[in-house]
Amino acid sequence: MRPSLMEPNLLEQPDFLVEDLGPNRHPSPLKISGEFYSAADRRVLFNNTVGPGEDIRDRELLSFGAAGPHKQIHFDSSKINVGIVTCGGLCPGINDVVRSVTYSCLDGYGVKTVYGFRFGYAGLTYRFNQEAIRLTSSNIDNIHEQGGSILGSSRGDQSIEDIVDTLVKFNISILFVIGGDGTQRGSMEIAREIKRRKIDIAVVGIPKTIDNDISFIHKTFGFDTAVGEARKAIDAAHIEAKGARNGIGLVKLMGRHSGFIAAHATLASGNVNICLIPEVPLDIDQLYRKIMKRLSKKNHLVIVVAEGAGQNYLCADAEEQYDPSGNVRLKDIGLFLKQKIGDYLNREKIEHTLKYIDPSYMIRSTPANAIDSSFCLRMGNYAVHAGMAGKTNSLIGYWNQNFCLVPIKLALSRRKTVDVHSSLWQSIMEITE
Amino acid sequence: MRPSLMEPNLLEQPDFLVEDLGPNRHPSPLKISGEFYSAADRRVLFNNTVGPGEDIRDRELLSFGAAGPHKQIHFDSSKINVGIVTCGGLCPGINDVVRSVTYSCLDGYGVKTVYGFRFGYAGLTYRFNQEAIRLTSSNIDNIHEQGGSILGSSRGDQSIEDIVDTLVKFNISILFVIGGDGTQRGSMEIAREIKRRKIDIAVVGIPKTIDNDISFIHKTFGFDTAVGEARKAIDAAHIEAKGARNGIGLVKLMGRHSGFIAAHATLASGNVNICLIPEVPLDIDQLYRKIMKRLSKKNHLVIVVAEGAGQNYLCADAEEQYDPSGNVRLKDIGLFLKQKIGDYLNREKIEHTLKYIDPSYMIRSTPANAIDSSFCLRMGNYAVHAGMAGKTNSLIGYWNQNFCLVPIKLALSRRKTVDVHSSLWQSIMEITE
Amino acid sequence: MRPSLMEPNLLEQPDFLVEDLGPNRHPSPLKISGEFYSAADRRVLFNNTVGPGEDIRDRELLSFGAAGPHKQIHFDSSKINVGIVTCGGLCPGINDVVRSVTYSCLDGYGVKTVYGFRFGYAGLTYRFNQEAIRLTSSNIDNIHEQGGSILGSSRGDQSIEDIVDTLVKFNISILFVIGGDGTQRGSMEIAREIKRRKIDIAVVGIPKTIDNDISFIHKTFGFDTAVGEARKAIDAAHIEAKGARNGIGLVKLMGRHSGFIAAHATLASGNVNICLIPEVPLDIDQLYRKIMKRLSKKNHLVIVVAEGAGQNYLCADAEEQYDPSGNVRLKDIGLFLKQKIGDYLNREKIEHTLKYIDPSYMIRSTPANAIDSSFCLRMGNYAVHAGMAGKTNSLIGYWNQNFCLVPIKLALSRRKTVDVHSSLWQSIMEITE
Amino acid sequence: MRPSLMEPNLLEQPDFLVEDLGPNRHPSPLKISGEFYSAADRRVLFNNTVGPGEDIRDRELLSFGAAGPHKQIHFDSSKINVGIVTCGGLCPGINDVVRSVTYSCLDGYGVKTVYGFRFGYAGLTYRFNQEAIRLTSSNIDNIHEQGGSILGSSRGDQSIEDIVDTLVKFNISILFVIGGDGTQRGSMEIAREIKRRKIDIAVVGIPKTIDNDISFIHKTFGFDTAVGEARKAIDAAHIEAKGARNGIGLVKLMGRHSGFIAAHATLASGNVNICLIPEVPLDIDQLYRKIMKRLSKKNHLVIVVAEGAGQNYLCADAEEQYDPSGNVRLKDIGLFLKQKIGDYLNREKIEHTLKYIDPSYMIRSTPANAIDSSFCLRMGNYAVHAGMAGKTNSLIGYWNQNFCLVPIKLALSRRKTVDVHSSLWQSIMEITE
Repeated sequence: MRPSLMEPNLLEQPDFLVEDLGPNRHPSPLKISGEFYSAADRRVLFNNTVGPGEDIRDRELLSFGAAGPHKQIHFDSSKINVGIVTCGGLCPGINDVVRSVTYSCLDGYGVKTVYGFRFGYAGLTYRFNQEAIRLTSSNIDNIHEQGGSILGSSRGDQSIEDIVDTLVKFNISILFVIGGDGTQRGSMEIAREIKRRKIDIAVVGIPKTIDNDISFIHKTFGFDTAVGEARKAIDAAHIEAKGARNGIGLVKLMGRHSGFIAAHATLASGNVNICLIPEVPLDIDQLYRKIMKRLSKKNHLVIVVAEGAGQNYLCADAEEQYDPSGNVRLKDIGLFLKQKIGDYLNREKIEHTLKYIDPSYMIRSTPANAIDSSFCLRMGNYAVHAGMAGKTNSLIGYWNQNFCLVPIKLALSRRKTVDVHSSLWQSIMEITE
Repeated sequence: MRPSLMEPNLLEQPDFLVEDLGPNRHPSPLKISGEFYSAADRRVLFNNTVGPGEDIRDRELLSFGAAGPHKQIHFDSSKINVGIVTCGGLCPGINDVVRSVTYSCLDGYGVKTVYGFRFGYAGLTYRFNQEAIRLTSSNIDNIHEQGGSILGSSRGDQSIEDIVDTLVKFNISILFVIGGDGTQRGSMEIAREIKRRKIDIAVVGIPKTIDNDISFIHKTFGFDTAVGEARKAIDAAHIEAKGARNGIGLVKLMGRHSGFIAAHATLASGNVNICLIPEVPLDIDQLYRKIMKRLSKKNHLVIVVAEGAGQNYLCADAEEQYDPSGNVRLKDIGLFLKQKIGDYLNREKIEHTLKYIDPSYMIRSTPANAIDSSFCLRMGNYAVHAGMAGKTNSLIGYWNQNFCLVPIKLALSRRKTVDVHSSLWQSIMEITE
Repeated sequence: MRPSLMEPNLLEQPDFLVEDLGPNRHPSPLKISGEFYSAADRRVLFNNTVGPGEDIRDRELLSFGAAGPHKQIHFDSSKINVGIVTCGGLCPGINDVVRSVTYSCLDGYGVKTVYGFRFGYAGLTYRFNQEAIRLTSSNIDNIHEQGGSILGSSRGDQSIEDIVDTLVKFNISILFVIGGDGTQRGSMEIAREIKRRKIDIAVVGIPKTIDNDISFIHKTFGFDTAVGEARKAIDAAHIEAKGARNGIGLVKLMGRHSGFIAAHATLASGNVNICLIPEVPLDIDQLYRKIMKRLSKKNHLVIVVAEGAGQNYLCADAEEQYDPSGNVRLKDIGLFLKQKIGDYLNREKIEHTLKYIDPSYMIRSTPANAIDSSFCLRMGNYAVHAGMAGKTNSLIGYWNQNFCLVPIKLALSRRKTVDVHSSLWQSIMEITE
Repeated sequence: MRPSLMEPNLLEQPDFLVEDLGPNRHPSPLKISGEFYSAADRRVLFNNTVGPGEDIRDRELLSFGAAGPHKQIHFDSSKINVGIVTCGGLCPGINDVVRSVTYSCLDGYGVKTVYGFRFGYAGLTYRFNQEAIRLTSSNIDNIHEQGGSILGSSRGDQSIEDIVDTLVKFNISILFVIGGDGTQRGSMEIAREIKRRKIDIAVVGIPKTIDNDISFIHKTFGFDTAVGEARKAIDAAHIEAKGARNGIGLVKLMGRHSGFIAAHATLASGNVNICLIPEVPLDIDQLYRKIMKRLSKKNHLVIVVAEGAGQNYLCADAEEQYDPSGNVRLKDIGLFLKQKIGDYLNREKIEHTLKYIDPSYMIRSTPANAIDSSFCLRMGNYAVHAGMAGKTNSLIGYWNQNFCLVPIKLALSRRKTVDVHSSLWQSIMEITE
């Protein structure tokens, strides 16, 4: 992400500051040496590069508080209950985070009870909150070896009042919310309602987006795993393409607004000839020309398309529709391209074979790979440290090699997208053109 | 497969006998000890179980010649060219077989040239025969580590005259045809045309069917690998199903006429609740009842459906269509069920989430697993032994732990299907009901 | 396996017959149609090939009873307890079998309780039998996704009296014993003691040997998985060998007396230059010559050695030692060869790099691959059918595509080894010389 | 890595500055838009966190030049040859880097010839330089799918004069050196000799260390893949440990001086009870106590040990030995602990089973996982941009989300190790104690 003078001066905008329930009156029960506590006093600069002649003195104005354990914490941890909820689509590593938060609460801070609410925010409503399960080492010890979410998930808004009533009913002091931007918008509203009622509950968001499109978090958990699985689908498409005269492999990957999975899987595979992402408007005639050029040269070709690519094109003649989370329902660009490319080549009398692969459910249900597991474990720990210290209405970010705390409002204020002027995209253009 | 009195008396039906170009006048150049040669004199009984009071004396009438190296062979192997062609859909292990046949010809029998014809039977026609490539250790050594076919494949009939002309033009003495039932029907016609022209060319079929539906071959190459990949798709569906209240995972697997992949993947997974195969007519109302029963008990469910299941149902109101190989184009039972089940549950006011996975291209493009690789290597060796001995118009079979030679006409005379009275199917009913 | 006149006439040797507790007075509670029951009346011929002029009339004398569900069973299944014990080294698929036996007993036959005895036969002794755990769907449902044995295992003899006392104490009617030849020798003794005491307990052996060295079972569970993992180790050795001038990769694989894993992994890999198995005496000078020849030609080389190879050579100057199961402790042929080859090449002034890989624990602890899982599930079902019908002192075999019952004494009377005159070994010689 | 006032003021120490062959007189032939060129003008701050009251004005003094394409380059790229050499132990991703550098040179900059020197620096000596191979798309296109190095590698010093003579002989303008700290020390000497001879050759180092122990590079390529494979070995050890009463799994992992693989694999696995790294001195009596405590509580245990752990302990009574690269030969801590722990438990009369796994060659020969592949591709591109711009005697670093140029001398001036006061180590202590 390139530096920008447009960035807010974080330290001067109260709205964009991490909120504290404060004060912190209880000594942390963590058995760690004093040196560990200094980290949380530091701030992480957003922009860490310097151009010629730039003055860096005001860099601190756009920075995040580093995350970490605090010597004094807000809650008397041995007397509290905490809750965990997982929302939105599946993503590798959710169970790792659930496990890490649970162990960190139980073993690290000695909390009384960890409740897992079932099937997303719905599990925090009157109708379903009796289904909450108590998480203990006996039911979470192996869950990181499975994909999915043992708590289950759902999409869609629920009554904020209901949710806060449930938190009160279960005597929850910290709610950990694992979810994407829609979900974290919900976290923000829950925190607001809590503040309105003047009750002492922290809401800590743990960003989950397989698309990796949340700002101020360099790489969200599950992304590496997803790229690995996506590469497998591309490899399959490549094998199919090479297996036929004028064979075309077309792979649709996740990426509603940001083409990070498509981009990195393209780099990882080395076998992609055309990579279409939402950040670059689709020009279908140019696409046809590229296809013809490639087929005339090599007689097989692989196309990767992120699900959000070409939407403006697609939607020209259709009304927008929304899913229960309020996300625009995307038209299926994969099926659209399959049809269009086939029609075009038939018109051009090019005998060909097109194989279309849509691997998304096989990608998102995979267990986390090792680095994602390691990252999830640490992110869970940091979330618990933040909650115990009374931080609320904030996300756990990861920026410039440091875990940090990012106000939800700030994180949601812009979406992270592939910068088409970056070296990442340049690399893709080099290997696909 | 249960014994049957309906079986042909093979030894009395010349039409069903393996054909020999004969005579075998050349000593085999293989550097193996004499003991290895005895195997090929034996016959392999089709039916090796005995019921109470059964007389087994005539068992030999339904038996196959065992495959193996011959002391005297038909061709002067150091002076001949051989050809390989791969047809039909991809299947794990094709490259293993191509590699094994090539090495066995070059290193074992010292043939002059091995030609690989490109993109199926089309590569043997005038239009494309200039694309044949010479296979040598430098271009095949690592191919078994890749999925697909380095030769490429295609579907569809081609002129038999063209094909035989090409064989003559390239001075081919043995043609190895890797393909399924449609392809082997072609092999039979090629062999017939060769016989008509009274030329000395052997045609050896190597059965390739990911569906495992060719008779007299216990397990075709690639099947184990396919079941392994299919299980991964089922596991993904299971994770998705558990991740939502009333979550349904629906997986379509290969199996046009025979549900072996669906059956074995169901057994392997242990997480399937309903398994639909072509051998059992679909009763959609019964299906709805099973779904309701399972959801009321466990609130998630996994359905596996072979692509050929429910076709009679589906085709009620549609005309049949055919693909270029003459196979009936199946209606997409996966999309059909996705729609029907969704509609039904909506009518019943059951909130649910249905995730549909169609992993077929990801399955068939996988490299062979170890046991399939080992099996392919041996099958390739046997094919070469057979061709060198002048066997023609026959397939390499594998039955009761022996490689054997099966007349193509016999192999195609019946399709191998899942016996719904067998223990295999019984096991599935036990674990899915 | 080639036919042999040396085979016992099974039907005339009472000692080699499957024992029946008999009579079978209870109707089977299985909800299956009548047709399924006929299979168990048939016999499976051992030798199913016929040589020229051979008379096959007496083939039935060497045959096994087919396994399968019986209409009338020996036990009143809803009133009995059964026990499962797993012994010896780990092997992929043990948990699949435990799960299958448990589900088949609970769901199929409705038995009262399934006990899992912990850590092998030791768990059936006084000292440890209080550790038995009750197996139910809640603690076994996912175990097939993990390697190892959830019951744990151990080696070594235990008091047969103790064991039978424990069976009586837990009111066990059928004991399922998952283990290799040493373990099944124990099963035989347990069955003998049960007979001596005239009590009504069936002992059903489920053959577990990663080496695949038990007679009359074509391929034991876990073998395919093991070959797949072994191939990975060979591939690593190959990469290491190619990565250095005169690079040598040396891989030791399982195979105490039978080189099946080494043989099949060699075939599967296609990258092995020398394959050493116990069935072929090691000639170390010949080995040196082969190494020199290969290095001079290609300057890298991969050697696979089964752990039992070269033992006669190794043991020349050492006393035999035994492990707690009574197996001879093998000298480490891998380390021996590593040393010897290094010394030899140093003497010959050949700069080289030798990388030694011993992957055995990583192989045997892997979860079963899909085909092994499917096979384990069916084998577990058959074991339960056999036990319910009062079959005892017998193993579940798999021969010529049929599950069958093999008297333990017969199965242990000879070890299955790689036939060096078979096509399997011939294929290896072709690709490695 | 925590900030430190001890860091050199990079911009004031000419010795620690990236060297330029300069001047850059040739326009870059890259077909990219102008905006891409700005990145390379920026600097990347080493320390991007700020403590309370800290002044950040002089942060730029410790910073690295950002890497990227330059508008004007030093070489007339279409007229030059470049060389690539890979040294030291294997590591996942080497082939990805070789491929990326080659494609970037050939397709991006249009260089005449890319030479790959065989088997490390030895391939640049008189004796072996005739073995250099010309790298083209036909021999590198698929190499990223294989582990190892297609160029081969070796250890050990070679004559710097010889090497520079070879560069001159092959008319090399840029040498890309893929290797670890020993190798890059060689790069520095080669660059020095080049400077002494006043010839125009750039030397660009690409840091390769599976241990991830080179400073100023946040995560070296292959590390993620290695952690993934290491986790598999730990999982195997865990399965073995649980499979026996008092089962102990002991896994030795790479990490001569830095325990990053052991640390991250421990976090990723979640099944490790004791993690020993070089940064924490081994106290063997404390280790025994931990083992006893764990066995008494859970009766199985997993220990992970980095190869460099406990060396001070081990070496007490032995002389130091060195390998050909000048690295101290480590005593085998894995075998040492296996012996010691066994002896201790035997003395304490604890029956136990200890399984020792040393997976290192299986880890380092693995192909890169997707994220590593993507990273390698980009790192290769950056290396080429640097070389073309005449940057020399420097490494491609990756710090705070930016690729940058790090003077080799600076990178080698300190080793990157696990900070035992960091949150990383704290997380490990939490989950293993």
